[in-house]
Amino acid sequence: MSDYYTIAVDVMGGDFGPRITIPATLDALARHSRLSAKLIGHSDVIQPFLNGLNPDVACRVDVVHAPDTISMSAKPSQTLRNGQESSMYKAIQLVEDGAAQACVSAGNTGALMVLGRYILRMLPGVDRPAIISSVPTAKGHCYLLDLGANVDCSAEHLLQFAIMGSVMTAAVDGIQGPRVGLLNIGQEQVKGNEQVKLASRLIQEQGGLNYVGYIEGDDLYAGNADVVVCDGFVGNIALKSSEGLARLINQKVQASFKQGLYRKFLALLAKPVLSDLKKQMDPSRRNGASLLGLQGIVIKSHGSANQQCFGYALDQAVAEIEQDIPRKICSEIEARLT
Amino acid sequence: MSDYYTIAVDVMGGDFGPRITIPATLDALARHSRLSAKLIGHSDVIQPFLNGLNPDVACRVDVVHAPDTISMSAKPSQTLRNGQESSMYKAIQLVEDGAAQACVSAGNTGALMVLGRYILRMLPGVDRPAIISSVPTAKGHCYLLDLGANVDCSAEHLLQFAIMGSVMTAAVDGIQGPRVGLLNIGQEQVKGNEQVKLASRLIQEQGGLNYVGYIEGDDLYAGNADVVVCDGFVGNIALKSSEGLARLINQKVQASFKQGLYRKFLALLAKPVLSDLKKQMDPSRRNGASLLGLQGIVIKSHGSANQQCFGYALDQAVAEIEQDIPRKICSEIEARLT
Repeated sequence: MSDYYTIAVDVMGGDFGPRITIPATLDALARHSRLSAKLIGHSDVIQPFLNGLNPDVACRVDVVHAPDTISMSAKPSQTLRNGQESSMYKAIQLVEDGAAQACVSAGNTGALMVLGRYILRMLPGVDRPAIISSVPTAKGHCYLLDLGANVDCSAEHLLQFAIMGSVMTAAVDGIQGPRVGLLNIGQEQVKGNEQVKLASRLIQEQGGLNYVGYIEGDDLYAGNADVVVCDGFVGNIALKSSEGLARLINQKVQASFKQGLYRKFLALLAKPVLSDLKKQMDPSRRNGASLLGLQGIVIKSHGSANQQCFGYALDQAVAEIEQDIPRKICSEIEARLT
Repeated sequence: MSDYYTIAVDVMGGDFGPRITIPATLDALARHSRLSAKLIGHSDVIQPFLNGLNPDVACRVDVVHAPDTISMSAKPSQTLRNGQESSMYKAIQLVEDGAAQACVSAGNTGALMVLGRYILRMLPGVDRPAIISSVPTAKGHCYLLDLGANVDCSAEHLLQFAIMGSVMTAAVDGIQGPRVGLLNIGQEQVKGNEQVKLASRLIQEQGGLNYVGYIEGDDLYAGNADVVVCDGFVGNIALKSSEGLARLINQKVQASFKQGLYRKFLALLAKPVLSDLKKQMDPSRRNGASLLGLQGIVIKSHGSANQQCFGYALDQAVAEIEQDIPRKICSEIEARLT
């Protein structure tokens, strides 16, 4: 792996598009001196953002024109047929061509998944890509996968997710033998559905992972595992329902500090504390979900990410490039499952 | 339905047993003048709690001796074989015998489910019992089912849950045509697993429910539905992961107000606000989950419920008796599905 690397940024994706993604990318270039960026999108839209750039940053920015954008409501099958001229398609294609080492998009998740799989293909021995992201815990954070790529998973898929998640956590967080748990509705061996029970047996038989057994929903945030594995339906519901509750609590905090003059005064005094908390409350704050299992790095940013949050997704891409995650997953899957 | 009714309370269940369940029951008797209670448990343990009772309450309390207790770790199959002398078994049996109109327990959920089903049997047309409980929303609360009774559900089961949940919400909350949603990972028709997609079709074809379509995890707390239906694996994970995050946020609030003298001072001032919030934060605060679909009322309290929370479970039992929920479910299922 060269010391210089390039990220392909789909600047058109997300709720705010170029006015978030381009400034965030330019900031990332300032943070990472060995990073170059290819900005993929409509060049007429991109150019105005590049006026008056610091020459050190300007020399590391390339614009790749893409006339089309994939909408948030586009069906994945449509993007395969008609998406070739879209910013997302071209961004992934640059990774496949070796012109970039990672792609970052805040666009349509289903389309990113389908195009990633079609253009980059799966790693040998991996049946399906999985979306992994981190959630805050009492002890720091843990990674949860799959977050919605796969609505029905077999035990073998869950085993593959466990290996991929373990590899990524070990590499990106520098943890030796990260603790791997399976999300389940109880801690006893008899609990759970058939896939989860069989996956537990497969992981134990496989033997190479630091498996800590079943993790219940409320343990997810306790920090008792570094990687928690589940199918995409369950993972998506767990993450989103937690986000929903965090939002509700935040609304209640705001409302609570508005009841009466005294409480309003308190809110003024407590503003820095409350603002700290708001930041800590959002389980999706650590932005930048990875699509694991592909022959290349694809990072999905939250569609509603602001500039700072999109920056986290770019940092995640840099970390995965530096650690060469796809190659590490490939060799672990080969060593353990073939 | 007579104006006088009796609840059978498994006083031995839960993390704290009689010292929570008995005072909570005596409080409920004081609140509900037409309520009687049968306290089921070891009579030696129960008697000391009944000394010096107000005669008006004392005349409405009965003790039913049960020498055994079902442990939290007992396997449901064991309780069927060896549970006859347990407080939980006898409490449910009293409902079957007509000596009580509802049973409340904070004990082992799996055992309660299996014994409820074995002793009371299912309502005609209902294949499986479902656990339903309410969660707070921005607009009040909504009911979520199933919360763990059924790890794998067919579309037909989800349809039955939808009807049962709708009946209960209409009756207990007095809502005409409660809005029914299906928990899913997206709002578009193509999203979700096969069971959920088919269930959506069945509910639409059935036509009698006020169906509002798919509800995503983060919408659960937004108040866009009155009843949200899912399989027990997903429901359990959604509820517990939300509880886990609420606990984490609460820890962070506490910690945040302890950093430095100024923040400690603020915490002192803000104590009533923070204590308000802590109460509102816990999605399980509205205690008292119902086992719907049985030929009798069975209410499950949180194992860790304190006296006040166990009281909510008793109130839930009273509300379901007053509304004669099993009979209403029976006639709705008959009208719609047979």
